[in-house]
Parts: sequence; C-alpha cells; structure tokens
Amino acid sequence: MANNQLGVGMVGYAFMGAAHSHAWRTAPTFFDLSLHPRLTAICGRDHEAASAVADKFGWESVETDWQKLIERDDIDLIDICTPGDTHAEIAIAALEAGKHVLCEKPLANTVEEAERMAAAAADAAKHGVRAMVGFTYRRTPAVSFARELVNAGRIGTIRHVRGQYLQDWLSDEDAPLTWRMDKAKAGSGALGDIGAHVLDMAQFVTGSAITSVSGVLKTFVDSRPLSAGSSERGPVTVDDAVAFTAGFDNGSLGVFEATRMATGRRNALRLEINGTKGSLAFDFEDMNYLEYFDATEDPAVAGFRRINVTQESHPYISAWWPPGHGLGYEHGFTHQVVDLLTSIAGGVDPTPSFADGLAVQRVLGAIEASSGDGATHQVIAG
Amino acid sequence: MANNQLGVGMVGYAFMGAAHSHAWRTAPTFFDLSLHPRLTAICGRDHEAASAVADKFGWESVETDWQKLIERDDIDLIDICTPGDTHAEIAIAALEAGKHVLCEKPLANTVEEAERMAAAAADAAKHGVRAMVGFTYRRTPAVSFARELVNAGRIGTIRHVRGQYLQDWLSDEDAPLTWRMDKAKAGSGALGDIGAHVLDMAQFVTGSAITSVSGVLKTFVDSRPLSAGSSERGPVTVDDAVAFTAGFDNGSLGVFEATRMATGRRNALRLEINGTKGSLAFDFEDMNYLEYFDATEDPAVAGFRRINVTQESHPYISAWWPPGHGLGYEHGFTHQVVDLLTSIAGGVDPTPSFADGLAVQRVLGAIEASSGDGATHQVIAG
Amino acid sequence: MANNQLGVGMVGYAFMGAAHSHAWRTAPTFFDLSLHPRLTAICGRDHEAASAVADKFGWESVETDWQKLIERDDIDLIDICTPGDTHAEIAIAALEAGKHVLCEKPLANTVEEAERMAAAAADAAKHGVRAMVGFTYRRTPAVSFARELVNAGRIGTIRHVRGQYLQDWLSDEDAPLTWRMDKAKAGSGALGDIGAHVLDMAQFVTGSAITSVSGVLKTFVDSRPLSAGSSERGPVTVDDAVAFTAGFDNGSLGVFEATRMATGRRNALRLEINGTKGSLAFDFEDMNYLEYFDATEDPAVAGFRRINVTQESHPYISAWWPPGHGLGYEHGFTHQVVDLLTSIAGGVDPTPSFADGLAVQRVLGAIEASSGDGATHQVIAG
Amino acid sequence: MANNQLGVGMVGYAFMGAAHSHAWRTAPTFFDLSLHPRLTAICGRDHEAASAVADKFGWESVETDWQKLIERDDIDLIDICTPGDTHAEIAIAALEAGKHVLCEKPLANTVEEAERMAAAAADAAKHGVRAMVGFTYRRTPAVSFARELVNAGRIGTIRHVRGQYLQDWLSDEDAPLTWRMDKAKAGSGALGDIGAHVLDMAQFVTGSAITSVSGVLKTFVDSRPLSAGSSERGPVTVDDAVAFTAGFDNGSLGVFEATRMATGRRNALRLEINGTKGSLAFDFEDMNYLEYFDATEDPAVAGFRRINVTQESHPYISAWWPPGHGLGYEHGFTHQVVDLLTSIAGGVDPTPSFADGLAVQRVLGAIEASSGDGATHQVIAG
Repeated sequence: MANNQLGVGMVGYAFMGAAHSHAWRTAPTFFDLSLHPRLTAICGRDHEAASAVADKFGWESVETDWQKLIERDDIDLIDICTPGDTHAEIAIAALEAGKHVLCEKPLANTVEEAERMAAAAADAAKHGVRAMVGFTYRRTPAVSFARELVNAGRIGTIRHVRGQYLQDWLSDEDAPLTWRMDKAKAGSGALGDIGAHVLDMAQFVTGSAITSVSGVLKTFVDSRPLSAGSSERGPVTVDDAVAFTAGFDNGSLGVFEATRMATGRRNALRLEINGTKGSLAFDFEDMNYLEYFDATEDPAVAGFRRINVTQESHPYISAWWPPGHGLGYEHGFTHQVVDLLTSIAGGVDPTPSFADGLAVQRVLGAIEASSGDGATHQVIAG
Repeated sequence: MANNQLGVGMVGYAFMGAAHSHAWRTAPTFFDLSLHPRLTAICGRDHEAASAVADKFGWESVETDWQKLIERDDIDLIDICTPGDTHAEIAIAALEAGKHVLCEKPLANTVEEAERMAAAAADAAKHGVRAMVGFTYRRTPAVSFARELVNAGRIGTIRHVRGQYLQDWLSDEDAPLTWRMDKAKAGSGALGDIGAHVLDMAQFVTGSAITSVSGVLKTFVDSRPLSAGSSERGPVTVDDAVAFTAGFDNGSLGVFEATRMATGRRNALRLEINGTKGSLAFDFEDMNYLEYFDATEDPAVAGFRRINVTQESHPYISAWWPPGHGLGYEHGFTHQVVDLLTSIAGGVDPTPSFADGLAVQRVLGAIEASSGDGATHQVIAG
Repeated sequence: MANNQLGVGMVGYAFMGAAHSHAWRTAPTFFDLSLHPRLTAICGRDHEAASAVADKFGWESVETDWQKLIERDDIDLIDICTPGDTHAEIAIAALEAGKHVLCEKPLANTVEEAERMAAAAADAAKHGVRAMVGFTYRRTPAVSFARELVNAGRIGTIRHVRGQYLQDWLSDEDAPLTWRMDKAKAGSGALGDIGAHVLDMAQFVTGSAITSVSGVLKTFVDSRPLSAGSSERGPVTVDDAVAFTAGFDNGSLGVFEATRMATGRRNALRLEINGTKGSLAFDFEDMNYLEYFDATEDPAVAGFRRINVTQESHPYISAWWPPGHGLGYEHGFTHQVVDLLTSIAGGVDPTPSFADGLAVQRVLGAIEASSGDGATHQVIAG
Repeated sequence: MANNQLGVGMVGYAFMGAAHSHAWRTAPTFFDLSLHPRLTAICGRDHEAASAVADKFGWESVETDWQKLIERDDIDLIDICTPGDTHAEIAIAALEAGKHVLCEKPLANTVEEAERMAAAAADAAKHGVRAMVGFTYRRTPAVSFARELVNAGRIGTIRHVRGQYLQDWLSDEDAPLTWRMDKAKAGSGALGDIGAHVLDMAQFVTGSAITSVSGVLKTFVDSRPLSAGSSERGPVTVDDAVAFTAGFDNGSLGVFEATRMATGRRNALRLEINGTKGSLAFDFEDMNYLEYFDATEDPAVAGFRRINVTQESHPYISAWWPPGHGLGYEHGFTHQVVDLLTSIAGGVDPTPSFADGLAVQRVLGAIEASSGDGATHQVIAG
C-alpha cells in the first residue's frame, strides 16, 4: 500500500458491519490522520448481502472466505465483526499473518480462547503488529472524560462502583431466536453481550481491576420462536440477565447488572462512581452528558452538574461541532478507528488490548462459575 | 381516656422524636380521624432535653424512665424512637401491658430479638392490642401508588428489582462516632439503618418476599473521632456499606446496595422495577414523583412518565394541597400515624406488622451471614 | 397578651386558611421564636364551616364578622386570606386599629387600592405596626438561596430573566366557575393569581425592578358551568393566560408567562436567570432543587448543578431535617410567619412590604394597559 | 450526469460546509436513494482552504467563483452555505440557470430579498427545478415526530407555544467579532441566526402561522475585539438577544426568546406546546428525546413521558441503529439531503420551501419593526 494508507478487510456486515464501515469511511473526514484507511474488502459468506453493504459504504471488493482476506497483500488490518465463536480463529490467523486486528467484543466465548488470542497478540506486538478489542463505549467523549477526571484525582479514592447495562429488546417472550441466544455462537447472553461492556467501562474509568465476584445468571424465557411469528420454538441457551457484586483491587465495592429485559430501558449503559472527593454518573441514553459531583466544594453550592460533554477541550470534540451540538452512537466507532490508526502509525500498542479483553473474559468466567455454585469467586489474573 | 382519644407515650426525643411528635400533632389537622391522638407523655433519660421537646411540640408530661410510661393508665400507645438495642425490651413490655406499639425500624438488632417481638405482637393481637413497625417510606404517596400499580397488574410479572439507599453523611472520615456506628447499640450500620428501608420498600412494592441473598458488608473507615474535632478516635464496629444480590419468591432478580458514603447522594432511596408490562422508578430525593413506563403502549409514544404524585386520587393526597404542591419528608410520618390510628379504631392489624419487621430482619441476618462466608444464603421463613 | 405571645385573628378559612393555620401552629415547634403566635380567632361568614376549621387546627374562637376581629383586644395581628376585593378594606381598618397585618397576594385588585394600602402601612409603621404581603414562594429555601447567590455576586450582571407560572387546572373547558374567574372579586385571572407570584419572585431574586412591559392577556374559555356538571354557564371575566416581555432597571431582558391551561404542568412556577458569571434555574415542581451554573469555571467541568437545597447552611433548613429529606409546599407558609414574627419581635419592617406589593400591582396594571392598546408601557414608580 | 446521479456544487466550506459535506457523503450509505448525490465541486474564494475541505470529504473539484459553479453542466444542484448577504444573488442565479438549490437559513437578510428568492423559486418550480431552505432542525427525529403527534390530533387545540433558542458563546464580552455580528453580512444577530430556527420550528410543529408580534431586540455588548486577544475593538451592529410575544392564526399565544448570552445553555433550542389534549416539550440539548403529556389519560398515571425517539417507527430511525442508540447533530443534515433528493427524484416540491423561508423572514422583519417602535406589529402575509 502507499505509505500513508492502510488496507482494511472487514469480516461481517450486519449491525456491527455498518457501524464499522461508517467509522472507517468517516474518520479521515473529521480527523487529521497520518495513516488513511482504505476500505479494501468486506467479507461475508452471503456474497449478495455483503456486496450490498460494499456498494453502500464503498468497500472496493467482496470476499466470501475470511482466509482469502488474510491472504491478500493489499490488506493490512482485519476488522472482525462476526459472532464470538469465530473470533479466536480469525484473529489468531490474522495476527500470525502479520495483519493488525480490530476485534469486536467480547474478545472470545471462553477464557481459554481469550488466553490464546492475548498470547498471539503479545507475539505479534513484537513485530509491530497491533491488536485492539472493540469496547467502543470507552470512546464516548463523556466516558473518556470520566476517565480523565478519575486520573486527575477529582474523584479521590473510589469506594463505590455501580454499573448497569439495561436493554429491553428481549422482554417480549415472542421475540425470535437469533445467534445471540445460542450459547454455541454467543458464548453467553446478556453477560458477554452487554455485561462485558459495563465491566470494561467500570475497569477503564476507575483504572482498577475486579478481583472477586459473586453473581447470578438468570434466564426468564427459555424458548423462543425460531423466527418472527413462527409457532415453532427453540431453546434459549444463554442468560437473559446477570447480577453480581464485585470487589476491586483498589478496595472499592461494585454492584453490577446486565439485562435485555428491563422494559423501557432502550440502551441504558449506566455507571456511577462515588469517591472521597467526588462522584460521577453516566447513562448512555444521555450520552452527551456526564454528571459530576465535586465533594470538595461548599455543600451549599454543591450538586451533581450535568456537564454537556461537547466543549472543545473534551476528548474527541474539537474534531466535530460547536458546544451543545451533540454526538451520536456511531461516533464512538469513528473514535475507535482514529485511535487505532494513530497507534499503528505511532508504533505503539492500542488500548483496550487483547490483554484487556482477556481480563474482562476472566471476570465473565468467574461470574458464570459463581452463578453455578453460589459462592464468591476470585478472578485469577494471568 | 375519652372514647375517641388515644394517649400516646413516646420514648426518645431526637431526630425521630421530632418527626413523630410532628406527626401525632398534625395528623388530626388534615385528616378526619375517628380516634384522636393525645400527646400525653414523652420519655427521655435527660429530663431537660426531653422537656424542651415537650414544650416545643406540646407533650403534656415528661418521664425519664420508659417503664413509668408503660405503667401509666392514661397512655394507650407506646411509640418507640430509641436505638435498636432497646426495641425488644420496651416493645415486649408494652405489648404485655396491653399498650399498642409503634416501633421505629429496624425492628430489632438481631433475628432472635425480632422473633420474640413478633411473637409478643401475635399474642397481643389476640387481645386487640396492635403493633406496627415504622417503615415510614411506604407512606410516601409515590411509593404507596407504586404498590397500587403493581397490585393492579400494570407492571405484569416482575423480573428485575433494583434497590439502592445512598447517603453521604459518613463519607468524611472525620465525621464523629455516634451510636449509629456502634454495633452494640445499632446492630449494624448501613445494613440495618437504611438497607432495612430499601428491603422493606422492595418487598412492599413488589408484594414478593426475598428468599435468597448473596452479599458483602464493607467498612471503609474503621475509626472515627469520639466527637467532632476530637483527635481521639474510637472504633467503627458496623458496616459503612452493603451490596447484595437477591432472589424473590416470584422469580425476580434483585440487586441492592446501601451506603452512607455515596458522595453527593443526600438521601437517595431508589427503587426500580421492571416487569413484563411496565416499569417503575422512584428516588426519594424526588419524592413527589414516580416514573412509570407502560410497555403495553405503542413504542413510538412510550416513555418513562414522570408522574407528579400530587393528584387528588393519589394515596393520602386529598387531605393536603392542590396538584403540583408537593409534600415533604415528614408527611410520611403523619400518614403513618393516620394509618395506625385508623387500624386501631377499626380493630384491625396495621401494616407493616412486627411479622413484616421480622421478615426484613431475617433478610438482614442472611446478608450478614453471606458476607461472612461468601456463599449464597437462603432466607429461612418463620 | 402575655409578653411573648401574639394573638392572631385570621379572616378566611379555605385553601389559604388551611395553609396559614398550619403555619401558625407549626412555626413554634421547629423554630426558636421570641414571640409565640396564639391562634386566637378565625373569622368566616359561614360559622359552621369556620368552626370546623377552628376545631381541626385549634383556633380558640370563631367570628363571623371581620370587624369584630379587629375590635378584639386579644388580637394583635390580622391575617387576611380572603379574595382580593376585600383586602384593602380589611387591611386598612386593621392597620388603623393598630393591628399588624399579613395579607395574601396579590395585595389588591387595583393599583389605586394598593396605593391606599401601602400608604396605610407606611403610617402604621410609624407606630411600630407591621404589614407584610404573602408572596410565600420567596420563602422556599431554593428561592431564598437563589437570592443569596445573586447578592453574593455569583451570577454577575444579570442579562436574562425568564419566568413562567404554568398550571393546568382550567384547561378543561367544563371546569366550573369560581370567584377566581370573576373580575369583580379576583381583579384579574392568571395575571394576578399566579403572574403576581412570578413577578415578585423575579424582582426579589434579581433585586431589580421591572420598568417597562409589553403584554397580551388571553381568555381561551369565555364561559364555564356555574357549578360542576351544571349545564348553565356563566361568563369568565378574567384572563386565562398572560404573556409579556419586560425591561428591568438593571438592563436585563425579561420574558414572562402565566397560565392555568398548560396541560401537564401542575404548579410549574419557574424562573431562569442568566448573568455574566452564572445562571440559575428553579421550578417549584422540583421545589427542593436549585440549578446553578458557574460560568467562571473551566468549561470542561462546568454544568448546571442540581443543588439539593436541604443542607444545613441553606435558608430555613437548620430547623428541619438532615440533608436530602425534602420540604413541601406548606413549609413556605411556616417560614413566612417565622419571618414575620421575628420582624415584629425585632421592631423592624418585614418584607415583602405593602410597598413591594404595590410595586407588583403597578406592573400588573401596566401589563393590562399594554394588552389593551398593544403598546409598550412604562411602569410608573410611586 | 448518469440517470440516477445528481451533481452537487457547494458554495462555502466552513462550519456549515462540513455539515453539508458529511450529509451528501453519508446519505447514500444509510438510506436507499433513487437519486445519488455526487460531490462534484466545492467553491470558496480561498482556494487552499476550499481544497483542504475537498480533500477531506472527497469533493471532486474546487472552484473559487460561484458563478463558475453555476455554469458547469455537471452540476445539478447548488448548495449555498455562505453568509446571508449572498443568498439572494446566488440562489436566484442558480434557479434561473435551472439548478436546484439548497440554501442555508435564514433565507435572506431582508424581506425584500426573500421575496425575490421566493418568486424565483416559484418560477423555477414550473420547470421542475426545486428549492429548499435549510431549517435542518425540522429533521431532528424528535421534532419531526412532534409534528406527527400534532397532525394526528394528539395535542388537540393548541393554546400555548413557548420557544427559546439559548446559546452562550457570546456571553464573554471579549469574544471576538465575526461576520455574525456584522449587520451588513448577517442581517441581524440572534434574531436571524437562531431566532429564525425557533420560529420555523414553532410554525412547523404547530402547523400554524404567526400573525402578530411584539418584540424587543437587545445588544448587551456593543463592541468586541477585532480578533481573539486584540486590544482593538469594532462595533457590534446586530442584536445579542431578542424576546417577543406572538399570536398564531390558530389563536394560540406564543412567547419566544433567542440569545447567545444565556450562560450554561450551549445549544438549547427548546419548544413547549400546550394543547387541550396534550403537551410537548423538546430541547435540542437532549435531542434524542421528546417529552409528551397525554391529557386524555387518568390523571393518576399521567405525566410527561420522556420518549427516546430512536424507535424503528420514528421518523428517519429505521435507517440507523437499534433503539436507545442515539443520533447526533449532523444527522439532521443527512436527513435534509435525503428528503431533498427524494423530492427531486419524485418531482415534487420539497419543504421547507423558499415560501416558508419568506414567511419566517416576514416575522423576523415584523419583530425588528416592533422593537423599533414598541408597538405590536401584524405579520403581512404575501
């Protein structure tokens, strides 16, 4: 490729495929990049469907076999947007072939897979090949800014972490089966799909790792129509919801929940943190805001401030619009590829790394184990 | 006493004493009561301090020994506003003497005490003597109305219960010791003081009992000044915070937290419930509102409604002001004595009963046990 | 009367009568007063109805003629809770008889009446007789605190004032006629009933007077049933709503609105102020909160703070409950009589004075005139 | 051009240029269009600056003279993103040359210019040439949905319209001069820049026209640094703020305000509507929400619902993400070009038309005139 271009090959073309396509396409229009992505090839087993997405977003070619993608010389990075059961195989193959990798979350379906992926990423890094896992919500400006406030000591010593990821698209017991309710493909349900996000966000914002968990997985609807309106039903083999308490290595106490059955909560990825010097509260349903309480102030004028995180000094914002002109869901994906391209161009490892993805996977595994035996489980660090 | 008067003797005169005094005094001015309370005597070991409160609120006499109160013929009801370690002794003595009892929460400091109290209340009820435990937040109109909506089937089958009681008055590690941080007097810390409230509220609103718990108690600050500004510190022997997951007998999944260290949360007693037909959300910091989501509506117009619970048809409201003219904290206490007086006058047992208080105590006990061994504990019903 | 007692005679016993009765009764129970109110007599033309209120609240006697009240030696203060057309006559007679006066708002139905009342109050003040007009919303802690922030310079030079008083109890065109829709009794509709409140609040909080107005009065429903359900209708002779722009003597630009037809707004008395150093926002439907924006901060952490105005240092709060335990509508009335009693005891004139009430009346008059001719009107100061 | 392509030539490349470029580029990736835009040429007097934008967004060529753009055969549509003083000349020339036109708001700087533009658009329409004015906020899904609710009768007869456009980027008196503070270029200040938006939104959502106004223009800071940090100051020749009351042809009463000095309000374009059957409230700072009150419901369960306008059935949403995954500021521009392309392809006139833009201009003119003489002005329809 030309010096300053990076050929991207993307595997998968559904929901995440559209979000990633838009990101690759939009990143260079608002950000100054030293490395420009090229939408070289999209890969999907259904050639017609993949071609339709290619036409929409301007992917230059279509493949139906991801191994072909890895073999192509004009492709420098593999972007994995497929279900979790395929992540390990594709990512490891890509890294071994010297391709950078962006892999959707959760990193894998099992701790064992995630360990192999993290090992492959560590090996690849020795040769300047980079790997990132797609915990895109970190790149919401309000979340990035929360991390900055914690880093700057504005929250003091953190005591409480309260995380929830509440959705409701499965509250209807006749919503049809998809791969996301199939343990073989998805690994788990709410736990890995959305619980992984809130876990990563909590560890990212606090800068602290979860060391013990006690959790409960719950399946409220154990069979669903095979397709919309079908009278034939198949088994749901994953959890609909998960709840757990957690201990962090900084001594703080966490309480977490993830569900796809919280009627009325469309995409409520919420995090609250209480520390000795202040508190933070975030809800993705109001993604342009971060609530911040400064406990060092005179109590008479203290209150949770609703910061509209669209000021020029806020993370990522200077590339976009004037204050008060909010961003949307897809901007996180654009920020993700901007950060990844910047890391690759700068020769540094991006975050969240596969090691970060593995750390989340270990917590997910410990929660599952705890749900199985009703006991508190330690999270074994690598 | 005259036919339609009820002599009240109150033990304790601090924070709860003021709230109860105001309630006894105000109930007959806004509500039509068939039984009128008479502020007959207040009891406190410090005669001067008790007299000051008596003068303020119009208590007719002052005692320094609660046993004297029970001996007096002109007293029909004992109102117990003292720390938890005294509840069992006073309440049982009063009930045995044929006095009705209103007892502040938590009912007791141990399950064993609560069991004896519930037994005494059951015995007394056979003779028309009534006992109530003061879970006053039930009487917040928004909370009572939440119960009505659940009862009316508006929420459908409940799947999720999310309860928090967040305060911050102990976040400063130099806030001084009081009896509330002394296990001998208070039994526990955040657990019994405020966790009991959110537990009762959750069981009341859902109409369902907690059957299993897995919890963690945490003490962040283990010593405090003996008094404000003192350099001498004494040990904190209770929890600063508690977190637990819970199973309900209706199959729903609960997640709970109580803390006195959530900076910026002054008195955030929050409850969220998600069911198949709708959801509810309440926060005592916005006590005149109940948020309600109706999941049976067209999604295009569905959203959490912020119901200003000041309409004439809402619980207790017709006695007060026109719509939009909100109530305050102390109104719950007024409603509590109105309901208690109505029950006594009507010859029926009031709720929450001592049996309800015992049920909460058993959950508190199971949480403590779970925190001790890291395992999930079943709540043993009586 | 005894040295430290003040005999109160109240005229009127309906909505405002209950609010005032509760205030007189409650003030000494939570506040330390050097002058104690005595609920000496209540006066109403309907003896039975007045007696019922007397029984409820503990008024010691009942009169049916307000002139009798003024003649009584055991009455030191006349509290006027009647419709506006009676204010001038009662208040002037009381002041001339050497009785202190608390008069409900608006001060009068016309500027001319208000001028005579203010003159009578000025005369009476020379003899130590005090007069106050009942703009009770000033005594909401959040509103009093807003005034403190402006006074302390936290808002800087005020540029914008945005006031609304939105109710909806007349949105139903079949809501029946009452004296509040009768110009002869009420003087005006939304303008004087609730517009007067938002005007007073705006002038109080900003510390600045309105000097010019341009307004529109509007009657949407010009006839209503004589009573609930009646098929016979009578004319509505007052405005349902009013809107106006205003200039203040500090150069700021005001925009105001008052209506009883804003469906869904139960009692939304709202004020927003924007200054060079900060902004404030208040809504009585969330009366325990004041929103404050500090424009002198780093924009990255600036945001409207939702101050829970229940801290010990907030106005009036130290007499009540711990932080986060909110107050209700009637507390403003209690604070009002506390302040009045304190002024009388201290020998100083209370605020808002009858002169303040007259100033509001002059703005009301100018708005009516402007609505008549479509021109901007200056507010003539006295 | 190819049958299904439309060559776009854009004049201007600053803030609005970026928003429009992104829109043209993104529309075909998420929407199914029968007519595809081609980013044929961008035009700016500064060739280098225009070329930089062209490179970023993929404009195929650069012109420095807008007249060249109009002469080019490969350009079918002129997109005008320049200051208001140039709109009339460019738009009329383009329409006369048979080019479709998209013109930023306000349509012009004077009523006279707007009249000529509307006449030109009417002539052009006879030949199938289309013209649209860029009131992009109409295309916010929540605003489009508000229009649908009004149309469906859910609000009933509208009585109150409350509009505000509050920004604060000029509250600092040392913020430097730009063309937006120069009457010669911008025509007016807050009035035309942002007041035009709230006026259009109010008329669009209500479906009703403003027929009379009484307003005040205000300039708080009359000189500003010529550039950031400069000690030399130049005159501000436009208004900083405007406030006005308005009558609508449906009888409703409007109150409006626009300012760039409301500290803490970054981009608060707010609209509240109260009708006999319901109410709506919108604030662009929470652009993914529409608040709706249904006044036909049982008051006990009625409350403002916060509708997350991201459901599949909401306007424009099916092209984007699942529920709860919000949109941002720039989506309105994408929707705008989607609607324009659909109108052109379908051979129908788009809205808002130049006639709609003229109607807004007439209201702006009447407000200015009213501010001049302090009288209420009628808005003369064309």
